[in-house]
Amino acid sequence: MPDFSSIIRSIHTELDRNTHRGKVATYIPELAGIDAENFGIYLNCISGEDHKVGDWDKPFSIQSISKVLSLAQAFSIEGNSIWQRVDVEPSGNPFNHSSLLELENGIPRNPLINAGALVIADVLVSKLKHPKEEFLNYVRNLTNDDSIAFNTKVALSEKRTGYKNYAAAYLLKSFGNLNNDVETVLDFYFHQCALEMNCQQLTNAFYFLANRGYCMRNHAFLTESQVKRINALMLTCGFYDEAGEFAFEVGLPGKSGVGGGIIALLPNQYTIATWSPGLNEKGNSHLGMQALEQFTTATKLSIF
Amino acid sequence: MPDFSSIIRSIHTELDRNTHRGKVATYIPELAGIDAENFGIYLNCISGEDHKVGDWDKPFSIQSISKVLSLAQAFSIEGNSIWQRVDVEPSGNPFNHSSLLELENGIPRNPLINAGALVIADVLVSKLKHPKEEFLNYVRNLTNDDSIAFNTKVALSEKRTGYKNYAAAYLLKSFGNLNNDVETVLDFYFHQCALEMNCQQLTNAFYFLANRGYCMRNHAFLTESQVKRINALMLTCGFYDEAGEFAFEVGLPGKSGVGGGIIALLPNQYTIATWSPGLNEKGNSHLGMQALEQFTTATKLSIF
Amino acid sequence: MPDFSSIIRSIHTELDRNTHRGKVATYIPELAGIDAENFGIYLNCISGEDHKVGDWDKPFSIQSISKVLSLAQAFSIEGNSIWQRVDVEPSGNPFNHSSLLELENGIPRNPLINAGALVIADVLVSKLKHPKEEFLNYVRNLTNDDSIAFNTKVALSEKRTGYKNYAAAYLLKSFGNLNNDVETVLDFYFHQCALEMNCQQLTNAFYFLANRGYCMRNHAFLTESQVKRINALMLTCGFYDEAGEFAFEVGLPGKSGVGGGIIALLPNQYTIATWSPGLNEKGNSHLGMQALEQFTTATKLSIF
Amino acid sequence: MPDFSSIIRSIHTELDRNTHRGKVATYIPELAGIDAENFGIYLNCISGEDHKVGDWDKPFSIQSISKVLSLAQAFSIEGNSIWQRVDVEPSGNPFNHSSLLELENGIPRNPLINAGALVIADVLVSKLKHPKEEFLNYVRNLTNDDSIAFNTKVALSEKRTGYKNYAAAYLLKSFGNLNNDVETVLDFYFHQCALEMNCQQLTNAFYFLANRGYCMRNHAFLTESQVKRINALMLTCGFYDEAGEFAFEVGLPGKSGVGGGIIALLPNQYTIATWSPGLNEKGNSHLGMQALEQFTTATKLSIF
Repeated sequence: MPDFSSIIRSIHTELDRNTHRGKVATYIPELAGIDAENFGIYLNCISGEDHKVGDWDKPFSIQSISKVLSLAQAFSIEGNSIWQRVDVEPSGNPFNHSSLLELENGIPRNPLINAGALVIADVLVSKLKHPKEEFLNYVRNLTNDDSIAFNTKVALSEKRTGYKNYAAAYLLKSFGNLNNDVETVLDFYFHQCALEMNCQQLTNAFYFLANRGYCMRNHAFLTESQVKRINALMLTCGFYDEAGEFAFEVGLPGKSGVGGGIIALLPNQYTIATWSPGLNEKGNSHLGMQALEQFTTATKLSIF
Repeated sequence: MPDFSSIIRSIHTELDRNTHRGKVATYIPELAGIDAENFGIYLNCISGEDHKVGDWDKPFSIQSISKVLSLAQAFSIEGNSIWQRVDVEPSGNPFNHSSLLELENGIPRNPLINAGALVIADVLVSKLKHPKEEFLNYVRNLTNDDSIAFNTKVALSEKRTGYKNYAAAYLLKSFGNLNNDVETVLDFYFHQCALEMNCQQLTNAFYFLANRGYCMRNHAFLTESQVKRINALMLTCGFYDEAGEFAFEVGLPGKSGVGGGIIALLPNQYTIATWSPGLNEKGNSHLGMQALEQFTTATKLSIF
Repeated sequence: MPDFSSIIRSIHTELDRNTHRGKVATYIPELAGIDAENFGIYLNCISGEDHKVGDWDKPFSIQSISKVLSLAQAFSIEGNSIWQRVDVEPSGNPFNHSSLLELENGIPRNPLINAGALVIADVLVSKLKHPKEEFLNYVRNLTNDDSIAFNTKVALSEKRTGYKNYAAAYLLKSFGNLNNDVETVLDFYFHQCALEMNCQQLTNAFYFLANRGYCMRNHAFLTESQVKRINALMLTCGFYDEAGEFAFEVGLPGKSGVGGGIIALLPNQYTIATWSPGLNEKGNSHLGMQALEQFTTATKLSIF
Repeated sequence: MPDFSSIIRSIHTELDRNTHRGKVATYIPELAGIDAENFGIYLNCISGEDHKVGDWDKPFSIQSISKVLSLAQAFSIEGNSIWQRVDVEPSGNPFNHSSLLELENGIPRNPLINAGALVIADVLVSKLKHPKEEFLNYVRNLTNDDSIAFNTKVALSEKRTGYKNYAAAYLLKSFGNLNNDVETVLDFYFHQCALEMNCQQLTNAFYFLANRGYCMRNHAFLTESQVKRINALMLTCGFYDEAGEFAFEVGLPGKSGVGGGIIALLPNQYTIATWSPGLNEKGNSHLGMQALEQFTTATKLSIF
């Protein structure tokens, strides 16, 4: 067993010296105001031990990381029929001047791009009586933590400026791949993305995907086969146009968010979360990407 | 340990009943003449045991599977500088009317699409004194089998009809991303794709990628880090527009060829090769894809 | 001088025998209910004579034809600065799975595609105090006919189903190329498209573009240079993906609408309007396209 | 009648003061060596008069302008069946990273882009016994000038560096839209583009397209209908991605070449040629574009 504790502490120490930390997202004031100096890591091993360093206990906006959680809930409710409305291929597209090009005849390339996540949101809005509440409860149950909540101010700011998401939703609607009205789906979606967690909570929330579907309290949330599929999607599609690079450099299924968080996991071994709000050119956390690359290099624990 | 032997035999028996076996490639006579009834599986475990069924010992044209082997040789010679000439992102492109769209400013999306493999061929042509011979020797050394050879007739047929590869090579040339002349690079490339192996040989050739860089005779061909990278590429880019589907259904790094072969592997566990020349709509072996999906489902041995 | 009267009558008689008349647009009930048997032609010569045949006096929904009129009004108000927000190149795009691909960094390819017309609508909404009323007045003044009106039922139906236009408007908004809010611009746009005219009124409305900027009452609405530019745009961009074909077969600047109307003109000679609601595969009036082709062939009066 | 002579002289004088003359093409030494100071205009009126100024009598490489002449010859031989192999739509494509994107299922968008001109070259290679000689004779007959010749050095230089044309030809071949072998077609094509003429000769060569198909000696080379079609194509497709701009600013059918030449014409009135080797960003002659814009503005003689 590698000495996890000293590994993550030395990675944190070294990277934290970095003055170039990427650019904090500025499209809404709530994100623009976050201090770029924040940097935390939390490692949650299936064996029971855990290790942490830096700002692991400060909550942040998980943003696109939430797409995996809504996908899990929709998958558990709807089963394989969701794949009729969204594909499972990487979106890697040299021509993606806008996220809308990711649609092919109204079928988004995968559920982890915005258009695909909107289709998943539409599934949940159709299936749940109180979509926002029931999704929040799902995440709280996964994590065994009732303190997790939406940041409503963030959700409202997203709504005010989320023109591209409106465009994607209307385009889906024009192809008949959105059953509810655009405003309702986007209201759900903007709240989903406005979930706040800290690094520890994030590793708890994703624990079931490293543990064959069972959360930390040992309740089953997905079948083993469904877990395999979601992990495959995170590996091939979890990092926008940098998915190949992440699989290549890090070798773990994972997902990043524009708030600077990254979650990654090694099946049967661990989940790991990093948070540093400065983003690289591709929109992924600058320090987080490096931390995870160094972590799998040092521990030799990746899927490849 | 699962009972590998009975698993692959029962998969073979069941699938072999299938009358719908996909379409054999017809673009050159040498492939068009192959009997669609062929179907073999070979499993080569790192532990030493191996298991086989059906037509595992008949040689076939490995075609695009060879791209992984030429990449390995170029990577071992050139190191990371090859990534300046070819990217590592999936090509998944809803608009790919032709393979040429995979280029962005002359940089192919990844080394496992045709344009990318041509750049790798160009690297080898530049670095090797006798490119074809030395590449063949590399494969023979990997496999510890001097009987492996090019099928020259196949190479010549490819050359006669390979207009799309000529177009890709000239386009690369126009962007300054091909240093040797087009005819020389294509002659190498068409020979490389015309390698013939049977399923057993294929599992031997790829053994080093499941064994941290060491071939069956325990010689190192790549570093652990390089192996991780090639496996990541196979997972995200190894199956054309069906890469996401393969990662999702099978959960193994792998590579298919238009001759009907597929190689896949689980690091530290096994390499497995299937051969059935009928192809599905995406150009991957119809029975092979199903066999591998059933194999990882039955054994629960995938990377996810 | 050709015998215009007998030429348009014989064209009408011959084409009217056609049982294959294309498909009437069905996306809103108000268009779906129009009788495909309607077919009218009106020729309005600068010399003063006019000729008509068939259903020339029945009003129909002019739809996209209105884009030329809103462009003319915006051009007269704003001058050349409008070309900073919309380009003048044909959109001919083999990849246009959706109208949104027509945007490049938020600049629509030309003002006669939907995205471009939305930018023009935005200009008018910004510049006019009562945009809908003042646009209607502009058209009434051009035509010298106060009976012209919007069909409000059509406008509301368009709004209920116009998801693609919503998507385009939000995408423009995301690029900062829409200054007013989406609902206001679309309300204007859907009304503009819901203008109703008959063939005669249409030739009167476009008279100024064949008459160096002067309407039938001899008031100037645009400069000669502005007229030249709008005519050039109609020639290169007036018929969607069939613009080249129309220039090629007919050789006149013109514009079609999904309601089955077509306007075309020869500078200093005439304007001509046709109406037949059945559309060909490219979305242009099936009989109208043929009538205009036969008309310029018979009269030898085209711009080429 | 405008005073043509003084108009073209004053345009020439004013523009010739310009120190910013664009960039001379440098991809082959024969073009790179041309003096950017050259600037000539020749106006050839159907009425018989002609007017000239500057370097109108110096021969230059007509390059892409030749595409119209080969199209005319192929059209006269093959008739409308050529449109089964090449379309007539503008190529205006925001995504055209390479000329190859202009192909849709092997059908080039129009005969004035490179891929389309290669198809036309293929038609001539199939139909003519001695393609290069017979094409040259066709041009000499059109122009009534046996001194016109290919510049073989230019043709050979083009062949040495014309990788993009090779790529386009092989791609056409892969789609079955090139009947002869690539080398033969390209040899013809590179010679065709290497024709040399001066401004006067160019206006003579294109005279038939302004004169209903009849050359200066009154021999018919095309029918009136064919002339109309070629003029329509020049207007919509003659200036690469600047076609809309040229139609808009100048309002004449025309064609430019990378050697700095431009030919334009007004049916029944005149042909006009300009030559200045400095190119603007879109690859059209910088001074030539301005000269023609000023000419139609001053004379008010355009098609719109």
